[in-house]
Amino acid sequence: MTTKTNRRSFLAAAAAGTAALPLAAPAYAQGNRTLRMATGWPKNFPGLGVASQRIADAITAASDGRLKVDVYGAGELVPPFEAFDAVASGAADMYHAAEYYWQGKSTAFNFFAGVPFGMTTSEHNAWVYHRGGQELWEEVSAGFGVIAFMAGNSSAQAGGWFNKEINSVEDLKGLKMRIPGFGGTVIEQVGGTAVTLPGGEIFSALQSGAIDAGEMAGPWIDLGFGFYKAAKYFYNPGFQEPTSAESLGINLELWGDLSAADQQIIRLAAAQENVMNPADFIANHSRSLDILINEHGVELRSFPDDVMLALGAASKKVLADAAAADPLTAKVSESYLAFLDEVAGWTEQSEQAYLRARSLVRAAG
Amino acid sequence: MTTKTNRRSFLAAAAAGTAALPLAAPAYAQGNRTLRMATGWPKNFPGLGVASQRIADAITAASDGRLKVDVYGAGELVPPFEAFDAVASGAADMYHAAEYYWQGKSTAFNFFAGVPFGMTTSEHNAWVYHRGGQELWEEVSAGFGVIAFMAGNSSAQAGGWFNKEINSVEDLKGLKMRIPGFGGTVIEQVGGTAVTLPGGEIFSALQSGAIDAGEMAGPWIDLGFGFYKAAKYFYNPGFQEPTSAESLGINLELWGDLSAADQQIIRLAAAQENVMNPADFIANHSRSLDILINEHGVELRSFPDDVMLALGAASKKVLADAAAADPLTAKVSESYLAFLDEVAGWTEQSEQAYLRARSLVRAAG
Repeated sequence: MTTKTNRRSFLAAAAAGTAALPLAAPAYAQGNRTLRMATGWPKNFPGLGVASQRIADAITAASDGRLKVDVYGAGELVPPFEAFDAVASGAADMYHAAEYYWQGKSTAFNFFAGVPFGMTTSEHNAWVYHRGGQELWEEVSAGFGVIAFMAGNSSAQAGGWFNKEINSVEDLKGLKMRIPGFGGTVIEQVGGTAVTLPGGEIFSALQSGAIDAGEMAGPWIDLGFGFYKAAKYFYNPGFQEPTSAESLGINLELWGDLSAADQQIIRLAAAQENVMNPADFIANHSRSLDILINEHGVELRSFPDDVMLALGAASKKVLADAAAADPLTAKVSESYLAFLDEVAGWTEQSEQAYLRARSLVRAAG
Repeated sequence: MTTKTNRRSFLAAAAAGTAALPLAAPAYAQGNRTLRMATGWPKNFPGLGVASQRIADAITAASDGRLKVDVYGAGELVPPFEAFDAVASGAADMYHAAEYYWQGKSTAFNFFAGVPFGMTTSEHNAWVYHRGGQELWEEVSAGFGVIAFMAGNSSAQAGGWFNKEINSVEDLKGLKMRIPGFGGTVIEQVGGTAVTLPGGEIFSALQSGAIDAGEMAGPWIDLGFGFYKAAKYFYNPGFQEPTSAESLGINLELWGDLSAADQQIIRLAAAQENVMNPADFIANHSRSLDILINEHGVELRSFPDDVMLALGAASKKVLADAAAADPLTAKVSESYLAFLDEVAGWTEQSEQAYLRARSLVRAAG
């Protein structure tokens, strides 16, 4: 890391106008910086890779090229789950990924992405931006030398693709399902087996019968992977991630070196993505659901209420176990669950009740 | 406007480095600009005025002071409903308001704010950002010399405050209700009387019996106005604006004069507000609903299904009448309703079904 530290010190000096600048370094001479962004997905992958690039482009454009951001797809700089360590150590400058990737470091990170039977996207934004979530997140991340902001959201995740119908809680027993994170722990709680597989291996595992079910994201991404050719039933809604936030993490030392204007530009680019990206997912999930039903004859299913209740009880236990792991996770969990208790009541009165009424009205023509 | 045009030309020349700069104008000498923002609400008004200021501060900070934005509360520069004309003429540089304020110019503007039984906030974002809404909006606004972007959202509006219960469609007949825009037209359709009053006059009109009911925004804002002291029942959800977007409009000639970096900064500040502001409303509606119920003993009510169905049928007619008014509104309406038809199906499968399941699980403890 010596080279990197030297480069940073040099840049800081250059920005302050205290260094004599060699003619051989014209970009540095103008105070420009190139930032390396490690990402959790392939470059330009629909929805996610496109979001990383849009963040990079926004930072470069708004800073008039003063901050150039180079986007590296998963594995190009480091493997996706190592992006956090790379940023913490300074081997990369920033990451665009999902916080639950770092749950091995602290289960507290899951709460900044999405948890089973937890908040929806708009509720989660309310908690992070205005009810203490961001401050807690900074406390967790600072312990590793990172600061992170919400920077996208793949919205409510689908229930997944199944080769057997789930008609009762009994049907979950022995179910082999590709489902990561807390969702997987919940499936284990109800007697299933959670399988961890990269997205690109789900299709063949479904087709070979190695797994009975798998969830990835929702209609848009799932259509691209062709899951409808390998599994009979498409279940909705999912219980595992009613929101699935992406985040932009930055090396904390680098962050402290940036000017207030550059910090503001990075915050703005992250926030823009936090509204444009979920909109992209909804726009495309919506279109893709039509294609799945009308062009590919996919059969839609939903989990019966007693299955949802069992998954709900298991989720409660999984969250309680996570909170018991360490005091900081307990603190984050407490804040999260307190706001969930409060906001769920307002959502029931407002958007949830509105959507029910709209369905009635639309059904009546 | 000559002075303004001259100032702009001078600044453009200064920015390009082609003008000799007088010592008396240090701000201009550094290429700085001051932009005047007319707003649709009082300065620093909770939720809305705070949002205007956050947009202004973000632009100033991200541009390192190159663009200074001065925020004017409603009436300080021009009355709220004249903000659009002020920006179109160049008397103001930008506005932060809601597009339905300009429905007298074109009913097409309503579709960029929110319409009865229309899209929710996340659906509306999907349409504007990714399914052609922004392009149509720019077509409508360009006819007046303005360009606008989404820049906040007061989220799903409440049903409102009533001094009589609404138990059937009959109870809407003769109802005198403060409700603006399309919502008011719908109330007229079902036999009520829509009353137009500034927000500050709703309380006394409710108290005196001059109106039977009134809607403003939702628990947060309504609590501030003290409506619970003047009306007995708080109805939810509303039908009139399931989303209520705010917008940042800019004089089109000024926009064309700005550098690509400054345009990007303004777009980013608007987009940030489009995620932070609805989060602020949800965070505070949620807390305020608790206060209304637990501290002020407010009685919650919801419209019966047959009332919602009657309001739904009337809304359909109101939207059809609006679309028939002119070809551009027809084009906007067609795009809006086509996406609504598509996305409503996905929402039913995903977030709406998830929320129903979450309620079941939470009720079970």
